[in-house]
Amino acid sequence: MAIDQFSLQFETSGRGALDISNSINSRLLDSRVKSGVAHIFLQHTSASMMLCENADPTVLVDLEMILANIAPDGDPRYQHDYEGDDDMPAHIRSILTSNDVSLPITDGHLNLGTWQGLFLYEHRYRPHRRNVVVTVIGE
Amino acid sequence: MAIDQFSLQFETSGRGALDISNSINSRLLDSRVKSGVAHIFLQHTSASMMLCENADPTVLVDLEMILANIAPDGDPRYQHDYEGDDDMPAHIRSILTSNDVSLPITDGHLNLGTWQGLFLYEHRYRPHRRNVVVTVIGE
Amino acid sequence: MAIDQFSLQFETSGRGALDISNSINSRLLDSRVKSGVAHIFLQHTSASMMLCENADPTVLVDLEMILANIAPDGDPRYQHDYEGDDDMPAHIRSILTSNDVSLPITDGHLNLGTWQGLFLYEHRYRPHRRNVVVTVIGE
Repeated sequence: MAIDQFSLQFETSGRGALDISNSINSRLLDSRVKSGVAHIFLQHTSASMMLCENADPTVLVDLEMILANIAPDGDPRYQHDYEGDDDMPAHIRSILTSNDVSLPITDGHLNLGTWQGLFLYEHRYRPHRRNVVVTVIGE
Repeated sequence: MAIDQFSLQFETSGRGALDISNSINSRLLDSRVKSGVAHIFLQHTSASMMLCENADPTVLVDLEMILANIAPDGDPRYQHDYEGDDDMPAHIRSILTSNDVSLPITDGHLNLGTWQGLFLYEHRYRPHRRNVVVTVIGE
Repeated sequence: MAIDQFSLQFETSGRGALDISNSINSRLLDSRVKSGVAHIFLQHTSASMMLCENADPTVLVDLEMILANIAPDGDPRYQHDYEGDDDMPAHIRSILTSNDVSLPITDGHLNLGTWQGLFLYEHRYRPHRRNVVVTVIGE
């Protein structure tokens, strides 16, 4: 059994989803873990780690529409709006979709389903640098 | 420390929840891990792995009502509707309730709370065969 | 590689969020795991384990407002209301925000982001005693 922990940085281009499956898979080659679990953790409360259908980009368009329904930007009822209309909605989206995910590693790579991609979802309007801590445990 | 990784298939009967706690517990006997974590991962983006109250079936009825409120079937605003009225809502439900869960293993079985069951929630109308990858780490 | 599994009890004071980051960190000192993952699991279906911004208390006020929108207390459509107006909403909130979280351990403590706190969110009106099973794996 072995453990490998490392950080990765991703530059988002504002609100929207970034497929990071390949970035994680590339780095897994160095871990030399063939079978185990990769725990992928985002150190932020206004972005998410999310599994989503990765074939049709309109899935992300429709998802964005529903997230905006659940937590509307600039809702006058928000008390927490220091950083703008997208501040509090970003926290709510982050909580509902989560900041961490664990994925099985099989034959040295993420064992995702055929149409499953791992996305970093930026909930703020502006681009941000986001830090991800990955911990790989296996053999 | 030991690791055991295996796949299980479940046949759903269309939209609704299937309690898979016993199936996982049965298979854990072969893993011979007494203390550790079971990571349970669903390789699909239109179904969920979900913990839920397991005593009163009306909990699932009410949950279904709220999920349908959040992501209505056949909403004309959806762009992604290739596979029907339940296509995009299934992806949204899957993202909000998640595809993976980790559970503690104690004395060789899932250490769930008294009223806690592990459910595979099918979000599509029609029955599907769903694949779950389980990774057990412990000793 | 080592594993350490233990339980912690928390007394909630009714609906609202309790920051348990320090409690977990204190107990981690005994685990002597420097690098790894802490799996934190709540054995209940009417409370949540949740990561949230920990600096401004109004974030939790706004979050509560949105959760009450999603699953209104006392909605007459609920069939499951044996324990009162907060019974079914508590289950829905629990499912949408989840009962388990895994966090990286680095240098012997939870490697959270600067503004990230780990909260136990009580969804019932009344105070409850809540049981959390923590499993630490690492070296």
